[in-house]
Order: sequence, then C-alpha cells, then structure tokens
Amino acid sequence: MNRLQLIETIQKKKSFLCVGLDTDIQKIPKPLLSCEDPVFEFNKAIVDATLPYTLAYKPNLAFYETQGWKGWLSLEKTIAYIRSKAENVFLIADAKRGDIGNTSTQYARSFFGQENPNHNFDAVTVAPYMGEDSVKPFLEFENKWVALLALTSNKGASNFQLLKYNNRYLFETVLETSKQWGDASKLMYVVGATQAEMLTSIRKIVPDNFLLIPGVGAQGGSLEEVVKYGLNNDCGLLINASRSIIYASQGEDFAQKASEESYNMQREMAKFC
Amino acid sequence: MNRLQLIETIQKKKSFLCVGLDTDIQKIPKPLLSCEDPVFEFNKAIVDATLPYTLAYKPNLAFYETQGWKGWLSLEKTIAYIRSKAENVFLIADAKRGDIGNTSTQYARSFFGQENPNHNFDAVTVAPYMGEDSVKPFLEFENKWVALLALTSNKGASNFQLLKYNNRYLFETVLETSKQWGDASKLMYVVGATQAEMLTSIRKIVPDNFLLIPGVGAQGGSLEEVVKYGLNNDCGLLINASRSIIYASQGEDFAQKASEESYNMQREMAKFC
Repeated sequence: MNRLQLIETIQKKKSFLCVGLDTDIQKIPKPLLSCEDPVFEFNKAIVDATLPYTLAYKPNLAFYETQGWKGWLSLEKTIAYIRSKAENVFLIADAKRGDIGNTSTQYARSFFGQENPNHNFDAVTVAPYMGEDSVKPFLEFENKWVALLALTSNKGASNFQLLKYNNRYLFETVLETSKQWGDASKLMYVVGATQAEMLTSIRKIVPDNFLLIPGVGAQGGSLEEVVKYGLNNDCGLLINASRSIIYASQGEDFAQKASEESYNMQREMAKFC
Repeated sequence: MNRLQLIETIQKKKSFLCVGLDTDIQKIPKPLLSCEDPVFEFNKAIVDATLPYTLAYKPNLAFYETQGWKGWLSLEKTIAYIRSKAENVFLIADAKRGDIGNTSTQYARSFFGQENPNHNFDAVTVAPYMGEDSVKPFLEFENKWVALLALTSNKGASNFQLLKYNNRYLFETVLETSKQWGDASKLMYVVGATQAEMLTSIRKIVPDNFLLIPGVGAQGGSLEEVVKYGLNNDCGLLINASRSIIYASQGEDFAQKASEESYNMQREMAKFC
C-alpha cells in the first residue's frame, strides 16, 4: 500500500486504528483450544469482528515464534486470511529486525512476500542500532514501509534512547539521521504513546512521516494526548492497541467484546479524520 | 551450557570457532536442491564436516525466515540434528531480537527451548536499543546466554554506535550499562572483527565477558588481530566465520572444503587455547 492509498483508507474508514495480533496461546478462550490451529481460529474471529473499524493489523512475531514452525504457519494463514477479506488493509510485521546489509535483504524479502505470497506485509518494524545499511535494504521495495524504532513505550527506553548529548536525545538523532535514508512515503517511526509529551519535538524533526504508536490501552497511553501532539495534515498516525482489544474478554464473547472495543476506538478517531 | 562447560569445551577442542549457518537456498549446490529439504541436507553435511573443529554454530534466522514456516522447520531439524550428534556444542540463534518485557519473554521461551525441545539454543543475539527490560527476560533462564550487540562489523555501525559524547562512544555506554544487568556467566557481546582495534578499550570495560566476533573471513577481519586484542585468561572469544566456510566451494566438494577451512581455522586457534 502506498502513502496515498494509506491516507485515503484512513479517510474512508475514518479510522487509524491498528489492532495488535499478539496472540498468546495461553490467553485464547478454552473452547478454541480443541481446534487444529487455535491461534489462527482466534485471529480469524478477531479479524472478522474488528475489520470494519480497523486500518491495520500488527502481529508481533514473538507470539508466533514461541510455537516454532507451527506458529509461523498460523501467521501465514492469518495474513492470507486478512488479504482475502479486504484489499485496503495495512499489515505490519512487528518483528524489530535489523542486521547487516545482505542479511537485512533476506529479512525484507521474507516480510514483503518476495518468497511467499502468504507472507506479504506492507511494513516491518526495524531496530536502528546497526545503522544505515541495516535499514536501507527494507526501503528498496516498492510500496513497502519501514517502521523504525525511535522512542519506545517501555521503561528501558531511558537507558539509551533518552541519553542526551549536545542537547539532543539519541532517539532524536535516530530521527534526524534516518530521515535522510528514505522519505515519508516509505519510512514511519515507532513512538510509544506513553511518551506523548515528546511528540511535539518529534513532529519538529519529522513533520510528515507517519508515526506508529503502540501503548494506548493496556500500557496506559492516552489516545487524546497522542492526537493532540502527533496529528498532522494527513493524519500521520497509526495507533495500535493489542491486549485491550483482543483480550477485551477471555470468555466466549471475546470476538463481540473485541468488536465493541475497536468500534469505540474508531468512534473516537472519527473525530479527527 | 554454562560458562565452565564452555571454557572446558574450548580447551578440549582447542577451538573457539563458531560456524555461521547462514544457509542461502540460492547458494546451495544444485544436486541438493532435489532433496525434500535442501537447507537441512546442506546443514547436515556442513555439520558433519566441521563438527570436530567447531565449538559453536550460529544460524542467522533471516536465511530461514525467507522460506517461511518451512524455513523454521529446516532450522528446528538442524538444531535437533546437532544436538543428537554432540553434547558439547554451543548453539547461538542469531536473531537480533529485542522487544518490550513480556514480548522479550516470549522470544526467550522460543529460543531457549521452553516450548519446543527442537529449538533449544544456548544463546540468542539481542539488540540493545530498547534497554534493560528488553534484555533482562533473556537473562532469567539457567545456563542460557545473551549475546548483546555492542559494536557491529557493518559500515552503518558508525551512524549510532560510534556517536561520541562525553568522550565515550554509544557502544561503550551500552557495555557499561548492560554489564549491570547480568554477569559474565550469562552475557556476552557481539563485536565485529572489522573493529579489532577497538578491542583494547572494550576489554577495559568488559574484561571477563565472552565476545562473539563475526566478520573474520569474507568480511575481511583478521583472526590474528582479534586474538591479539581480545583474548583473555579464559579465552573469552567465539569467532564466527560463515561464508568462508559454508561456501568454501559451491561444487559437490562443498562439505570437504568446509571441513578443510574449519580445520585450518582450528589449527590457528589451537595456538591460543
């Protein structure tokens, strides 16, 4: 999906909600556990319930990798299912990859469906520590995106991302440096919602780029705060909620509750797009 | 494998060689491509040929993920095969993971065999950008290791790792800060061989920790330089070579040539342990 399509989809759906498919087999409602592929069945039900209100889905790969190759198969089936249901949906592999050049190319080929059409994401999250030649291979694919980690929502963000030198945080240097590697049509940034007060200075450095914002909901970030400081003329936001939607109920009504939660978020978001 | 066992294995095998199983299906000798699982068959042949001279194996996951779930299955079969051949072999998942706390725990469970006995690595490479709570979950498993990225062998290392503030490089701050999260029995560091001249200052900060050193061979790093500046009393080095061994020949004699290459490196290493 290219930038124009992304913006048009936001306007059409009046939503910039990203649902985090962080599907933990230990938290799946018991009746599903007798299915052949409980993770896939759970995801399918969540997608069916949330798709009308959702711009994007973001599976975090950790939850699939715990199941080894079977987990990867569940993931591939999930991606194929979503693609079969809708064209205008943005799929993010929350993989936080990053490696030396030729190896990053391998990762990019994997996530952008060059080897396997069932594994065809629009974007992948990438860690910046290894620098330019670890990120650029991901930027070489048409209509594909990098969501580069800038300022994350966890406590450990303070260890390195918030080191301050020459009046500038490390994450600000990451923004400043990386925006030379690709433009706002390919490069978005991950900024935790728990750091909403930082969005003003982030928008000074990257006014046009989309920001992928996790941490709203279970992690305590506020949608209102994020919108206040992060919105730009194209919306410029993808706001992720995972646990607060997919585990809104752990009973048999999990899909119904997920639908309600995503609907409520979409209603809030509709005011701004 | 714990630290004492690691040191004893180095002394017994007179080797601190790590073979990087970066198995690219495009580079596998053609006759193998007709097998049901060419990647596994290639790995099996490489392991059989190199095991007498090798301390550790390090598959880079990118090369498996390009094949999707089938690639993960090849990886799991490879790990199970190596475990069936030898007890005293150190297995590193070169995954460069790192995520917020509960998600890092998922990754750790995956790589340390808590969910799947065929996916039972001794160590996993982790990126430091997200800080303490992204690394610590990996340090909570008995006799398991984190290999934390410090100074990588690629050009992009200069973008952030070599930012210098207050007379200290960012990677030095990563060493200094992270060594408080775990001791030298669980925590090793990735330092590229192309940065051998930096090893003197690295050893001042982390004198006791093992260093996992890629970049010898195809990437141009020198074994002699690395040993000169990096060796400590326990050896303290794991030196990785990938392409120079596994693709020593792309003909039918690939296993024989891999055996010779690994033997040559082991003979060099034997002088120092």
